[in-house]
Amino acid sequence: MHDLLIENIGLLATPTGTAAKAGAAQGEISLLQNAWIAVDGERVAAVGTGDAPEARERFDACGRLVTPGLVDPHTHLIFGGWREHELAMKLRGVPYLDILAAGGGILSTVRSTRAATQEELEDKAARELRVMLAQGVTTCEAKSGYGLNLEEELKLLRAIRSLNERQPVELAATFMGAHALPEECRDDREGYVRQIVEEMIPRVAAEGLAEFCDVFCETGVFTPEESRRILEAGQRHGLKAKCHSDEIDPIGGTEMAGELGAVSCEHLIRCQPSGIAAMAKGGTIACCLPATSFYLNATFAPARQMIEAGVPVAFGSDFNPGSCPVNSLQVAMNIGCYKYRMTPEECMTAVTLNAAAAIRRADRIGTLEPGKQADMLVWDAENLDYLFYRFGTNLVRTVFKRGRKLLDAKT
Amino acid sequence: MHDLLIENIGLLATPTGTAAKAGAAQGEISLLQNAWIAVDGERVAAVGTGDAPEARERFDACGRLVTPGLVDPHTHLIFGGWREHELAMKLRGVPYLDILAAGGGILSTVRSTRAATQEELEDKAARELRVMLAQGVTTCEAKSGYGLNLEEELKLLRAIRSLNERQPVELAATFMGAHALPEECRDDREGYVRQIVEEMIPRVAAEGLAEFCDVFCETGVFTPEESRRILEAGQRHGLKAKCHSDEIDPIGGTEMAGELGAVSCEHLIRCQPSGIAAMAKGGTIACCLPATSFYLNATFAPARQMIEAGVPVAFGSDFNPGSCPVNSLQVAMNIGCYKYRMTPEECMTAVTLNAAAAIRRADRIGTLEPGKQADMLVWDAENLDYLFYRFGTNLVRTVFKRGRKLLDAKT
Repeated sequence: MHDLLIENIGLLATPTGTAAKAGAAQGEISLLQNAWIAVDGERVAAVGTGDAPEARERFDACGRLVTPGLVDPHTHLIFGGWREHELAMKLRGVPYLDILAAGGGILSTVRSTRAATQEELEDKAARELRVMLAQGVTTCEAKSGYGLNLEEELKLLRAIRSLNERQPVELAATFMGAHALPEECRDDREGYVRQIVEEMIPRVAAEGLAEFCDVFCETGVFTPEESRRILEAGQRHGLKAKCHSDEIDPIGGTEMAGELGAVSCEHLIRCQPSGIAAMAKGGTIACCLPATSFYLNATFAPARQMIEAGVPVAFGSDFNPGSCPVNSLQVAMNIGCYKYRMTPEECMTAVTLNAAAAIRRADRIGTLEPGKQADMLVWDAENLDYLFYRFGTNLVRTVFKRGRKLLDAKT
Repeated sequence: MHDLLIENIGLLATPTGTAAKAGAAQGEISLLQNAWIAVDGERVAAVGTGDAPEARERFDACGRLVTPGLVDPHTHLIFGGWREHELAMKLRGVPYLDILAAGGGILSTVRSTRAATQEELEDKAARELRVMLAQGVTTCEAKSGYGLNLEEELKLLRAIRSLNERQPVELAATFMGAHALPEECRDDREGYVRQIVEEMIPRVAAEGLAEFCDVFCETGVFTPEESRRILEAGQRHGLKAKCHSDEIDPIGGTEMAGELGAVSCEHLIRCQPSGIAAMAKGGTIACCLPATSFYLNATFAPARQMIEAGVPVAFGSDFNPGSCPVNSLQVAMNIGCYKYRMTPEECMTAVTLNAAAAIRRADRIGTLEPGKQADMLVWDAENLDYLFYRFGTNLVRTVFKRGRKLLDAKT
């Protein structure tokens, strides 16, 4: 007698394999017709077709598509204010790095974030998380990086820890003090890097506030050498490395991060063959952010070449108040499908198992197999193609997190 | 004593002028802070700031943005089946016209549409209209064109008439028998054009089933000469002309339609300066479909040049099962903003007053002024920029149609 049975599943689509560090081969999806899933407690107990086992509670999927819950492996969830006033500059074609250099962009959000209390930031993020959950995101990475000094970065990471307790979307915390050089350190790059390495990282690690350490390795932000010092310091303190690299200029960040065996590289719009080779060698996940390319009117990461080189590709929303105010991973996954020309199977892997691997949770989430966490979506769809064919409408109908039904939209 | 008062409006943004046939000058938006709207029956009675008049019912907009209801001036709402199986071809880069020539595309939908009953088609469209309404669309154009013979086209137009009675989104019907050459007429183009001109149009007009007549003037579909015969026949029977032109190849459709004084031209991706001049001369609205360009991975219509030439630009979703399975006008308007580089004010005009003008309802909807229909949206936003800055999330909070509150999403 199981706790819960999801029955009458028209199509169960899930990556398989309690994935290695490097994620699944892209697009290796198991497709099971007329299936059921039995759940005990928070976990999948069994998956099958034909006669279903007994259960105390039954949920009729009415012939619909069921997949694992979506995993968003890249968000800047915690910030104060918005930046809609930058839209006019964007429409006039002002480059992103010029806005940043003029004290706008990230630095503008730093000012509003510092001005907000931890509770205000939590409430604001909680509103976005409700929308994200309704769009199928059951696990989400969240970065600090709008505080840019010890106390403010701690405030953001504490907001993430608190949100993890007060709402159902599971959060994975990343420390990103190296998101920009704060205004007060404009003339002291070395001082700020040392502050990150010597003060922030040890404190963040000591308080257990983050699992990952990320850095914005980019022209005008942090050099590959500075980024390496920061990520290595993180690794020494048990924070796994992530790296924003090749978003605007290919300055060597991906190559460096691959050498360090980083968990993931982010953006990768301008990633070169040497970067792809470094990720392949380092067992690094390529975390591509298609909605950001779209929103910035930029080109798109060479995702197909990465897949061909055996680098697992994940998609994130990159939700943030500047370069991608899009909190919908469905929108990102559809843009990824069209623009990277990845198949629906490859894209589904990118937002489930490979995204889970990008936040080192592939042993627990990202597939629907016995022993995995019962994070499940019932879609207003009968097949995977349909999810990628329809664009701009939330197709999630029912959300289960840890075996518990959280949302059920009847239309 | 008014029937209804919308009070505490943070910002009321509306085009003004009970627009001429040609729509408003793009972006002439009235912005009223701390405003109220008084409604009597189905109509706006007064708009103002400061002390609000008495009313039997009051609605607190809580400082939010209020705009007119969105008008979607271009949809192919009524069809059987979906075409997600074409996604794989699309991802391999097979051109749209090749899919059509191979009996796929529109012709595939014609088969599923003919196989469906009128009631099935209505139920399917009603589900989409519920989503469209929740996204702020209070008036919507709907075309026939998947029947392609007299009885089947009548079935689709009757479905539109029936839907107009059974659900709240107001529909404007367009007869588009000239959407493709049906398979059974493959060897008899002239016969099909005559069927449209001599049988379908007179019957559609006699039954009062449509206000507009549209034609797909495109390579491999209908020539400008055939299109002209069809649209002129429509005009003789009181059906105002619309024309799908310059979507893929610029073969002269826009120039022809402008000469005829068509109400609108649609798509216009490849529109030439001669087409823009013809629309300006003909008083024709340019109905641009940004989501279709995006979905087809095509280029974007020269909307800015149209605005500069004094041609009013409207945006439609182009919702259809092939080239644009996007039913969200919000998504279309945001893509239009980024890709055409039109300001939020220009885009808001494009989905309200100019869209109303494209379906000849600018005297009744598309603005919030005394005497206009009280179709109103309350947004989860405080300013117009925010609507265009956030992408991929439905920001509509409350929908009023004809002074009646239809939806109210509390988040």
